[in-house]
Amino acid sequence: MKNLIFFTLIWLGAISISIAQTLTSPDGNLEMEFSLIESGTPAYQLSYKNREVIKQSTLGLELKNDEHSLLNNFSILETKESSFDEVWEPVWGEESEIRNHYNELEVYLEQEETNRQMVIRFRLFDDGLGFRYEFPSQENLGHFIIKEEKTQFAMTGDHTAFWIAGDYDTQEYDYTESKLSEIRERMSSSVTANLSQTSFSPTGVQTSLMLKTDDGLYINLHEAALIDYSTMHLDLDDENFIFTSWLTPDVTGDKVYMIAPGKSPWRTIIVSDDARDILASRITYNLNEPIAIEDPSWIKPMKYIGVWWEMITGKSTWHYTNDFPAVKLGETNFEAATPNETHGATTENVKKHIDFAAEHGFDGVLVEGWNVGWEDWFGNSKDYVFDFVTSYPDFDLEEVRDYAKSKGVEMIMHHETSSSVRNYERHMDQAYQFMKDNGYNAVKSGYVGDILPRGENHYSQWLVNHYQYAIEKAAEYEVMVNAHEAVRPTGVARTYPNLIANESARGQEYQAFGGSKPNHVTVLPFTRLIGGPMDYTPGIFEMDISKLNPENNSWVNSTIANQLGLYVTMYSPLQMAADLPENYERFMDAFQFIKDVAIDWEKSVYLEAEPGYYLTIARKEKGSSNWFVGNVNGNESRTSRIKFDFLEPGKTYIATIYSDAKDAHYRNNAQAYEIRKVVVNNRSKLNQLSVPGGGYAISIMEAGKGETRGLKKL
Amino acid sequence: MKNLIFFTLIWLGAISISIAQTLTSPDGNLEMEFSLIESGTPAYQLSYKNREVIKQSTLGLELKNDEHSLLNNFSILETKESSFDEVWEPVWGEESEIRNHYNELEVYLEQEETNRQMVIRFRLFDDGLGFRYEFPSQENLGHFIIKEEKTQFAMTGDHTAFWIAGDYDTQEYDYTESKLSEIRERMSSSVTANLSQTSFSPTGVQTSLMLKTDDGLYINLHEAALIDYSTMHLDLDDENFIFTSWLTPDVTGDKVYMIAPGKSPWRTIIVSDDARDILASRITYNLNEPIAIEDPSWIKPMKYIGVWWEMITGKSTWHYTNDFPAVKLGETNFEAATPNETHGATTENVKKHIDFAAEHGFDGVLVEGWNVGWEDWFGNSKDYVFDFVTSYPDFDLEEVRDYAKSKGVEMIMHHETSSSVRNYERHMDQAYQFMKDNGYNAVKSGYVGDILPRGENHYSQWLVNHYQYAIEKAAEYEVMVNAHEAVRPTGVARTYPNLIANESARGQEYQAFGGSKPNHVTVLPFTRLIGGPMDYTPGIFEMDISKLNPENNSWVNSTIANQLGLYVTMYSPLQMAADLPENYERFMDAFQFIKDVAIDWEKSVYLEAEPGYYLTIARKEKGSSNWFVGNVNGNESRTSRIKFDFLEPGKTYIATIYSDAKDAHYRNNAQAYEIRKVVVNNRSKLNQLSVPGGGYAISIMEAGKGETRGLKKL
Repeated sequence: MKNLIFFTLIWLGAISISIAQTLTSPDGNLEMEFSLIESGTPAYQLSYKNREVIKQSTLGLELKNDEHSLLNNFSILETKESSFDEVWEPVWGEESEIRNHYNELEVYLEQEETNRQMVIRFRLFDDGLGFRYEFPSQENLGHFIIKEEKTQFAMTGDHTAFWIAGDYDTQEYDYTESKLSEIRERMSSSVTANLSQTSFSPTGVQTSLMLKTDDGLYINLHEAALIDYSTMHLDLDDENFIFTSWLTPDVTGDKVYMIAPGKSPWRTIIVSDDARDILASRITYNLNEPIAIEDPSWIKPMKYIGVWWEMITGKSTWHYTNDFPAVKLGETNFEAATPNETHGATTENVKKHIDFAAEHGFDGVLVEGWNVGWEDWFGNSKDYVFDFVTSYPDFDLEEVRDYAKSKGVEMIMHHETSSSVRNYERHMDQAYQFMKDNGYNAVKSGYVGDILPRGENHYSQWLVNHYQYAIEKAAEYEVMVNAHEAVRPTGVARTYPNLIANESARGQEYQAFGGSKPNHVTVLPFTRLIGGPMDYTPGIFEMDISKLNPENNSWVNSTIANQLGLYVTMYSPLQMAADLPENYERFMDAFQFIKDVAIDWEKSVYLEAEPGYYLTIARKEKGSSNWFVGNVNGNESRTSRIKFDFLEPGKTYIATIYSDAKDAHYRNNAQAYEIRKVVVNNRSKLNQLSVPGGGYAISIMEAGKGETRGLKKL
Repeated sequence: MKNLIFFTLIWLGAISISIAQTLTSPDGNLEMEFSLIESGTPAYQLSYKNREVIKQSTLGLELKNDEHSLLNNFSILETKESSFDEVWEPVWGEESEIRNHYNELEVYLEQEETNRQMVIRFRLFDDGLGFRYEFPSQENLGHFIIKEEKTQFAMTGDHTAFWIAGDYDTQEYDYTESKLSEIRERMSSSVTANLSQTSFSPTGVQTSLMLKTDDGLYINLHEAALIDYSTMHLDLDDENFIFTSWLTPDVTGDKVYMIAPGKSPWRTIIVSDDARDILASRITYNLNEPIAIEDPSWIKPMKYIGVWWEMITGKSTWHYTNDFPAVKLGETNFEAATPNETHGATTENVKKHIDFAAEHGFDGVLVEGWNVGWEDWFGNSKDYVFDFVTSYPDFDLEEVRDYAKSKGVEMIMHHETSSSVRNYERHMDQAYQFMKDNGYNAVKSGYVGDILPRGENHYSQWLVNHYQYAIEKAAEYEVMVNAHEAVRPTGVARTYPNLIANESARGQEYQAFGGSKPNHVTVLPFTRLIGGPMDYTPGIFEMDISKLNPENNSWVNSTIANQLGLYVTMYSPLQMAADLPENYERFMDAFQFIKDVAIDWEKSVYLEAEPGYYLTIARKEKGSSNWFVGNVNGNESRTSRIKFDFLEPGKTYIATIYSDAKDAHYRNNAQAYEIRKVVVNNRSKLNQLSVPGGGYAISIMEAGKGETRGLKKL
């Protein structure tokens, strides 16, 4: 590492000079340069192995009702440099130990005229850069309103991007792969209908944004530790290829209400010339605070099934009756209502699911639509929409609870809020207490539709604050949270690992809403999953949705083998087997992989990766010698070539390979798969075909004495 | 009462005819006529002793995104008539029994084209009319948004009005007396600066609105049972003297989100040719639901002092330190801060107040500024502004609690929310529980400044819902609420009598903020108090505020005798002696009235009344034979002439009369009062001078044997 020059330049006053200061990563591959450029404007640039990654980009914040803002006229008061190296153990994760190793540069700035101080803190890891704004306690800066954060990410050229449209209310778009210069023309087709959506710019995109340069550099832009701040989008100047931060406004158009002492989230740039390093990066977690839960022993990964896909496909309904055009909780008499006969969450149906879960070793059963209020829950901007404790007449919560307990299965609670956030906060204590009283340890929460308070946005500071409130309140009750439609995660699960998953992207449900692109799942790990696990809900075996609901002609653009691969490639400590039990019963040999696959890992090895095209990951189960490999493939057939050198030398394993049949295809032969058992060791290699929208999954168990008999070596 | 014709006119279809139906009050003085006029528009008119009060006025609601609205094309499906007569006992009040006696007309309307049904329910009492809109459960009307309620109140001429400017965020204006035709020209001068205010119309005014016709009719317009609806203002067509309802919008401009079955608040018109009947009317309570609290034995009137006026005047401060430009609760270290030496809520000061309260028989002591966060509480749109449980270092809550208990005095909690409503709701359970844990039974809450969620208004449906939530949640904890800056009351205290008072108007504090009009207190009982008691905080003895704080030149526009009169004229079950103990110690003979006066009443007799000019009320203490009389006077000297015929015949009483000295004047001789004791019985009469801004107070105690010796008969 280069020596840093120690600046105390306050006496330079208004003289505008360029002051540069460099920071290198521990391995020396990344180099960051900070400088004050014209008019005392902070700027940074970043290179990787001497190749420019981020061109000189300015930093600063535009304030509301403030003629000076925090954009320029800065001088450097002082800089500090330090190094940090630690290994920490996550409660759950892709690996059991995470190294947090970086060199840090703190730049203390003072603004002339106002005497206001701001710190920009840079942390340079081997795999990328994080930086944030900090506002120390000071006389001239107490409360202030950020009109816009003006953080630039100046690209070096017209890179390829995997992007979804910037939006204040939804993240549930298919990814578009295009040149930066093509974003504008492809924007309108990328914005598909959603139940709540607010676009803001013809070149605005969301993070985490995955980029690839023409010369093979992979760059990921995102944020870490989004706490009590507004969610960042990126707005592209598509003439100069400069992204500038674009925060989500509140109802009045303001972006952030800030108090000094305070800080922004981290802005992250992950860089490598190998796409696998993007997946292996732990920057996002490392930039979050250590765990805040003293005894996290109650947090544990879960594999679950649910009464859910049948409603998603339209086979059954969340609501219980068609009697009421509007429901008033506490007044509407459900006991006297006519059942619609399509309600999914009946005691009987749930008990069947409990039986199935118990038989096949699932930890939990999710039930949606169990509680009153679904008759008019959506689209009415209804304040008191759910109470989170009252069951429909045909769902006997106590009976279900006792039955599940007798079978050793946990029930998973469901709190759809209909985005009526005040109502949820009002009922939250009671709702969580009700869970504990009835043995529920995990909740899936949902924020479908436009936000109440009306006019607010899903990703504004107000809502970011709410999602965090829900997580921290849940921690008080020892409740695990799987929040859907909440803001995309930014590694906060390091601090609150009871946030066991989020949706916050286009999940499998869209395969029943018209379908997603076959290569969608090859992009998500490079984008959405950078911030934390996704409850993608893999495991759909019946691709023809009309077989579940004749009125729904949607098609699941995936093969069964691809669905199996997802259990490894789409990391989550909460994994669902999303299809109906009767569909699994038709393919019990394939279903065996879902039963076998682990959900918590000691180690992950990223074997092959190219965003939008393919992904192959091997993971070692925590506390066992079992390994699991998953591959998902994009739009074109491809032969994956992997080595098993991750296995322990000298050991013999039996690998069960679940792969696409040669003639399989996501569109017209999705259920054609092959299963074979072979003997492998750490010198084995595999060439394995994956068809379009296909993939494969392998379970690798240490071979017991005699178990390899009759099996071929790979 | 006239017989009502029973209509079943559904088959009349689209034929536009005028259908009239009349309803009379039990005593026959009031007559209301309902009709469907042109285009099937509902309309009503009202007369009193054959004099027109409300000219034909249309009724209906404009809906958002609905071409039909609920304005016209109605036909009458059915009408129902009924009578009701009951006597109920309020937990506290101006009398121990309230008669609820009315004739009712329900008009069932159906809208052609939409088949939607709406009911208009009229209740005609001897003292006025109440009506509301009801929306039965029906197929074609579930959720709907009220863009504007279009309820007309068509005046018969250019009446005199006592009005304050319509405003979405404040009610704290001085009243203007003017002709209706003069409202427009006097609007701008009527709108004085306030910490949060939003005007909407040059002829918009607030309810309760007090009107007087040229021929001596008194009319009061207000609303009752404002629950989960938006607060009504009145907008004047000043060419035709027609008021139309104008609801308070939410942040998006919408007025009400309604669900069928549902109903509007009642719109009330109190009428008489004697102003005293307006004060005696109980319409507003009668139109509210009966008590919802099963055992209200914990609700009891209180007389209290407080550490408050010293901060209002600027003699001391709510905040503890000047060290911090901004506070972060949980992070800012108050223990290490430098005290500013002006903090009012110190343990020592509070104990002095407890001593004073105990010595003089007060029930409670309010302490404001006891909890951390006052350094930056106002004007910063700060979300997490107070936690409601953490004391400043110089306030030892446990020591104070134990000391108060040892002296038999109750502490009154203070929850200033700074209008950060989400924050308050998040902390409410804990805050109320903290109160119970520490023996607090009553809370003064405050909503100073602009509302959070930002852009919301103090009187929108969202906030009305919040205030009600706070009251109902308080009832769960057996906590009494005195809510300041909350929406003006509408009789909800019948249902939730733990709402023991509100501010919701220009209270005494404005006498330290530049002063209020001397006749202000002669208007409030005709306006603000129609909906419920006011925590006006009477009892200021030192009118020259610069004596408390040399930098504050405000003057209290009132005599001491006027201040004493307020304890009777300004009804509240929660009455403060607002001045500093040292000011009372200078006038202990006058202070004796404050110590003696009752706060809960068996009976009230309205002896003299003219809004804006004078007011004399006699009240009998509940459970005793004591009577108290209060008079407040307007801008001009006046001799009040009252009879004591309310006293029990044959009994002898000693009356202590606290009156203005002859040369007293609110402006230059405010502390000149006289006290005399006389013997009275039910044949006694009194001619008593009240000076400008003056008044008098009389305590009347049954004379014990020999006690009248030496006293003159009146």
